[in-house]
Amino acid sequence: MARKKIFNDPVYGFISVPYGIIFDLIEHPYFQRLRRIKQTSLSHYVYPGALHTRFHHALGAFHLMTQAIEVLNGKGAGITEEEAQAASIAILLHDIGHGPFSHTLENALIRVPHERLSEWFMEKLNEEFQGQLELAIRIFQDKYPKKFLHQLVSSQLDMDRMDYLTRDSFFTGVYEGVIGYDRIIKMLAVHDNELVVEEKGIYSIEKFLIARRLMYWQVYLHKTVLAAEHMLVQVLRRARELALLGIPVPCPENLQFFISHEVREDQFVQDRDHLLARFASLDDYDILSALKAWMSHPDRCLSYLSQGLIHRRLFKLELSSQPFGEDYVSTRAAKVLQWWQGPESELSYFFLKGMESNSAYNTAQEEIKILFKNGEARPMSLSTDYELHSKIVTKYYLAYPKITGG
Amino acid sequence: MARKKIFNDPVYGFISVPYGIIFDLIEHPYFQRLRRIKQTSLSHYVYPGALHTRFHHALGAFHLMTQAIEVLNGKGAGITEEEAQAASIAILLHDIGHGPFSHTLENALIRVPHERLSEWFMEKLNEEFQGQLELAIRIFQDKYPKKFLHQLVSSQLDMDRMDYLTRDSFFTGVYEGVIGYDRIIKMLAVHDNELVVEEKGIYSIEKFLIARRLMYWQVYLHKTVLAAEHMLVQVLRRARELALLGIPVPCPENLQFFISHEVREDQFVQDRDHLLARFASLDDYDILSALKAWMSHPDRCLSYLSQGLIHRRLFKLELSSQPFGEDYVSTRAAKVLQWWQGPESELSYFFLKGMESNSAYNTAQEEIKILFKNGEARPMSLSTDYELHSKIVTKYYLAYPKITGG
Amino acid sequence: MARKKIFNDPVYGFISVPYGIIFDLIEHPYFQRLRRIKQTSLSHYVYPGALHTRFHHALGAFHLMTQAIEVLNGKGAGITEEEAQAASIAILLHDIGHGPFSHTLENALIRVPHERLSEWFMEKLNEEFQGQLELAIRIFQDKYPKKFLHQLVSSQLDMDRMDYLTRDSFFTGVYEGVIGYDRIIKMLAVHDNELVVEEKGIYSIEKFLIARRLMYWQVYLHKTVLAAEHMLVQVLRRARELALLGIPVPCPENLQFFISHEVREDQFVQDRDHLLARFASLDDYDILSALKAWMSHPDRCLSYLSQGLIHRRLFKLELSSQPFGEDYVSTRAAKVLQWWQGPESELSYFFLKGMESNSAYNTAQEEIKILFKNGEARPMSLSTDYELHSKIVTKYYLAYPKITGG
Amino acid sequence: MARKKIFNDPVYGFISVPYGIIFDLIEHPYFQRLRRIKQTSLSHYVYPGALHTRFHHALGAFHLMTQAIEVLNGKGAGITEEEAQAASIAILLHDIGHGPFSHTLENALIRVPHERLSEWFMEKLNEEFQGQLELAIRIFQDKYPKKFLHQLVSSQLDMDRMDYLTRDSFFTGVYEGVIGYDRIIKMLAVHDNELVVEEKGIYSIEKFLIARRLMYWQVYLHKTVLAAEHMLVQVLRRARELALLGIPVPCPENLQFFISHEVREDQFVQDRDHLLARFASLDDYDILSALKAWMSHPDRCLSYLSQGLIHRRLFKLELSSQPFGEDYVSTRAAKVLQWWQGPESELSYFFLKGMESNSAYNTAQEEIKILFKNGEARPMSLSTDYELHSKIVTKYYLAYPKITGG
Repeated sequence: MARKKIFNDPVYGFISVPYGIIFDLIEHPYFQRLRRIKQTSLSHYVYPGALHTRFHHALGAFHLMTQAIEVLNGKGAGITEEEAQAASIAILLHDIGHGPFSHTLENALIRVPHERLSEWFMEKLNEEFQGQLELAIRIFQDKYPKKFLHQLVSSQLDMDRMDYLTRDSFFTGVYEGVIGYDRIIKMLAVHDNELVVEEKGIYSIEKFLIARRLMYWQVYLHKTVLAAEHMLVQVLRRARELALLGIPVPCPENLQFFISHEVREDQFVQDRDHLLARFASLDDYDILSALKAWMSHPDRCLSYLSQGLIHRRLFKLELSSQPFGEDYVSTRAAKVLQWWQGPESELSYFFLKGMESNSAYNTAQEEIKILFKNGEARPMSLSTDYELHSKIVTKYYLAYPKITGG
Repeated sequence: MARKKIFNDPVYGFISVPYGIIFDLIEHPYFQRLRRIKQTSLSHYVYPGALHTRFHHALGAFHLMTQAIEVLNGKGAGITEEEAQAASIAILLHDIGHGPFSHTLENALIRVPHERLSEWFMEKLNEEFQGQLELAIRIFQDKYPKKFLHQLVSSQLDMDRMDYLTRDSFFTGVYEGVIGYDRIIKMLAVHDNELVVEEKGIYSIEKFLIARRLMYWQVYLHKTVLAAEHMLVQVLRRARELALLGIPVPCPENLQFFISHEVREDQFVQDRDHLLARFASLDDYDILSALKAWMSHPDRCLSYLSQGLIHRRLFKLELSSQPFGEDYVSTRAAKVLQWWQGPESELSYFFLKGMESNSAYNTAQEEIKILFKNGEARPMSLSTDYELHSKIVTKYYLAYPKITGG
Repeated sequence: MARKKIFNDPVYGFISVPYGIIFDLIEHPYFQRLRRIKQTSLSHYVYPGALHTRFHHALGAFHLMTQAIEVLNGKGAGITEEEAQAASIAILLHDIGHGPFSHTLENALIRVPHERLSEWFMEKLNEEFQGQLELAIRIFQDKYPKKFLHQLVSSQLDMDRMDYLTRDSFFTGVYEGVIGYDRIIKMLAVHDNELVVEEKGIYSIEKFLIARRLMYWQVYLHKTVLAAEHMLVQVLRRARELALLGIPVPCPENLQFFISHEVREDQFVQDRDHLLARFASLDDYDILSALKAWMSHPDRCLSYLSQGLIHRRLFKLELSSQPFGEDYVSTRAAKVLQWWQGPESELSYFFLKGMESNSAYNTAQEEIKILFKNGEARPMSLSTDYELHSKIVTKYYLAYPKITGG
Repeated sequence: MARKKIFNDPVYGFISVPYGIIFDLIEHPYFQRLRRIKQTSLSHYVYPGALHTRFHHALGAFHLMTQAIEVLNGKGAGITEEEAQAASIAILLHDIGHGPFSHTLENALIRVPHERLSEWFMEKLNEEFQGQLELAIRIFQDKYPKKFLHQLVSSQLDMDRMDYLTRDSFFTGVYEGVIGYDRIIKMLAVHDNELVVEEKGIYSIEKFLIARRLMYWQVYLHKTVLAAEHMLVQVLRRARELALLGIPVPCPENLQFFISHEVREDQFVQDRDHLLARFASLDDYDILSALKAWMSHPDRCLSYLSQGLIHRRLFKLELSSQPFGEDYVSTRAAKVLQWWQGPESELSYFFLKGMESNSAYNTAQEEIKILFKNGEARPMSLSTDYELHSKIVTKYYLAYPKITGG
């Protein structure tokens, strides 16, 4: 057993990382950048402890991968050392393509999903590391025959979810989101080349699904968090519009670039190295310092939204399980417009209508499989006497400034 | 604020108890007896940490009652000091009527439910304390106009459940059973004289229901726990039969009394003081020392079962969501009988057939009510977009010795 | 890697035990007996959660041993599988010789230290398991050349202490006793065939020593705990005296035997199998059921002390850092005697004078060694800029019943 | 009891804040700014979880203040509601004067200690809130007769320390730094107008002192943390020098101002409102975005240090309990200079020599006092049989880039 680098982690105690390529990847500026991207965007406006980063999450998911591989090999899965390392690299880098404020600004800065960006980062790192990431990339892309290795990286039961639910509930203090990650991992097995859970773990899976549902509505889709995140999207939309009109919106150079150019996937492919270098320099700090600068910008929209975010004067968000009536919406919109005393064209920055949805368990996707003692594996939805919640729950919202008397 | 006695509790940190009647009740031998009755009977055979007692549980439920009352009064519930003390006494004594091994031996030692016994204990204490428990008894019996006080003591959302789920998951180490008791308590309110939960707490209630379900199947109705508890019931049944035949079954005197007499509720009422004094002397230690003595008893049944319990050589328990087929049962029974090489009349001590059932949420009982922002309160089953699990899940079992080759 | 039996443990989460001899030893009645011996005797009278057993402690120490061996082998210690198993057995069985109420009644029931009894149990088990415990016994007795293996089992830094401090602070709820067991274990190394701690762990060792000191004075030597334990010793002393006078003291047979006979080490050696069988049947339950029976014994001393223990009416214990003055002692004794209204010869059951002492760190014993980066190992007392507390702190006590007006 | 705003806190569960001035102060931009200042500067480079902010710390200290006041009033301290509110405001704002990276850049940006700045912020807020902070300011400045209220805010046992040790150990994951804050608070009392600890809490105080010592050496003065913080100081020193030479160092405007002007206390007093407004706009984000911009600055020193910090290529730091010999230092310096290949005048940015010191307990300051049962209060150093560690431990360091072959 080789000597290892030890990281302190309040969640798991210690995380041991072997020296060699894994450690070298962690030291790489691409990975260090994740120290400056918060895992849960603006949810710290509601849960002040939630300042943990994608860096820490990636380390945590790596840690769970190590445990999962040990458990599976203890049950005869026969994962080789090379495969183990590749799966570990794949989970370590699964989020490397995230930009500032992760999902919140996905598509707002660049019209490319973060998974594609993660692949490009991995390809670039593969070049730098002389092809040592080949196998990791195949696993990440689900092109490796041992399908269960991909499922450890990405599936309804992957190490990504195990870590983020555990970590987010820890740092928010929403202890009800705690899942039995250690028990679930101990119950993992491989059956017909797929990742399955032993029968004894079925209650832990139910609990995991309900905890995930709770985290969605209580944290990720919390009214105030949604309000703040929508404001952030609007402020960038406004900055982009001003920039396209030639009005200066001072901000760090690389952010400026993505605000002035709408980069799409095909363009990225053609000019990968240049665009990746620019994108790799961005993090939460660029956005925040732009907001701080824009607080005194002459454009009323831009300064109003920037001040609101910095001073935490957030929109009110109405949430309903029914769509809002047209009358209600137009009355409300009129009030906001009257308060704003600006052109109607600006209303869209201050008056947002939309919906969010979530299902506790998605039977449309590849299902979680349960392995019974008789050797048979069945989908979760056919294994439990419990009603699985595949129904998609949708909630409708209106968001707008808290206007006195409004 | 009066000075208080502080108890250390690994679950809540510290529990403060005011000097006065509450402290005096805790010092009473009836309450001290609960130190010798384990909260979760034989579940420590599977979860070795689960040795906590009804004494600790009662203190914990009292602690939560104190918090709940503070929260409710903060929302204007207007609970007087006298009512607060009475509700605290009611929760402190709600389980005082439990005997050795609690639910496992309920009806096996005495044909009276523990709630009736709790009432008799309270009446007796009320006499000793010159009527100071009057109000507590009325609340316990739901005869006090402020119904919500009774609901804090006994309902689908009472402080009893809050504590036992929290405490049992803590001491078993089944952390997935953890509930957000502190959040739920912070969300409690009174509406139309009833205990309700504010809308924001709805996900915590869902989580609470699923955690309770998990604890049932994973701990309280765990196969090995059931097997051990069934053995314990059989050993006492056998002892009673031998006693009725005049065969000596040496054990502590008061246990002897209840083994030789089948005391029913009407008899208890007639001879309350005498029988209560006898019953109040019983605890887990009497049963255990009887088992140890019976390990060398000449009766094969008695000694076999006693040895099995002491040395933890427990029955195998088959669990199924379907009733067992008659053929399967009779074949299995024949094997057990052949192994036992005793009269067929003894088979019933070694071959048990039965079922256990549980529902995550009982809509047949008085429902949990949710208070919405518009001031309306609705039953939980009509408040959530979640499928509540009122369905009763039944599991069938067969239990019998692990016979080599069987 | 072989399949393993998993135990839930609220302290470490899960403890994995390999099937084979380790599991078989755990299943043995000798080891199962430890389920009925509390780890911290009567400290649950002050800390109601402290009901954990020697069974759980032994499993926990075994768990830490597994981790320590993995760490040491990761640093090249070259522990073979056979040695690893033997060291694991040695730690698993290190306390197997403890009797009812462990240290409290050590010497009160039988005049043999528990370590000797542990050895005899191991020898007996070695016979039953056809010599498979040879190596474990050599390690336990420090007769194996790799001295560091013995130090893992017994030294100032052994897995016994790591577990009991961690476990006792967990179950008492005295969280200040928490030690960084995982960090200390990660810092262990082997140097010159001895167990050492790497330099980086020096603050963890300081913290470990202070936590241990705190646990001694706050838990193990807590005034009320000492009072209860002294009462327990006296009640057995009285029972023995009565028995020697031919007065019946009803209690379980094997306890009766040890009360009527003062068994010494030489007798034990001569009649080992018989005496071991008797001793192996004893546990906390025998003592408790004896106390319950003796509550109504005609002997006033015996019944008074038994009632006091069962109803938790404990002696008052005065603690002082100075010896008590003779005048004070005799005045106090006279008051107790006057209250008792019995012969002066009985005073010694009710009036106890003595002292307890403890040092945070014992430099007289083999010291903890610190390994510096330059490859040198030095004793802890020469490694820290911190004042180590080798000074023995002694406290003097008087214990006697709480007499009204006394 | 008024309704309260509830904050989730992973450390204490929930923090309740009364609506009114306390809540309004939290909503003020000055206080919201603390969301952007990390509590432990760059220690997250070693402990990736340590991203918690001064905002969260201030809320936490406020929470403990609420508990302490309740305990003290329960013992008859007679703190009025007005005093309670004032003490709560004082603790809430005690760190309001901290600037970016707190202690690390104290004096580097502005030559005024943060306590003075806190006072100015409070005075300014007192104006805005029409004098409602008068009493809070008097307590903060120790000008209020009830001296113990000041001691709750600032002393060797204040709520500031209670929270930061608890919180920092939580977020770093250095669980050995955990203190028994709840027990210590329960043991607080007032004696002769001073804050004291009851005798029973003496071991908790010892433990608190040792935990604090451990946190200093293991976290706050950790080698790598010190290295990073020294680099940060140097990069700002360099920026300031360049600015004074008229070389542009692009960065946010208000940061620019403090880099180009060395503001001293007397200047601040004269131009308070203007300078406070500028200072109040600064936070960690300004420094980070400056560093990111400076990574490509033409000045080699500035860009080298900035890149090092952003990419976490940190100096090596040698630590020793002895001062380094002159020969060693000059040889080492020569190597660094040779590697740098720049003018000797630049060496001071890359080669740092200094010392750090800490004492576990400071008897020179006002001591912690212990209240004995006989009503006497004595200083901690005369109350414990334990050796208190008032000795100041000094460690010497050299810091410089990790040069290959160096």
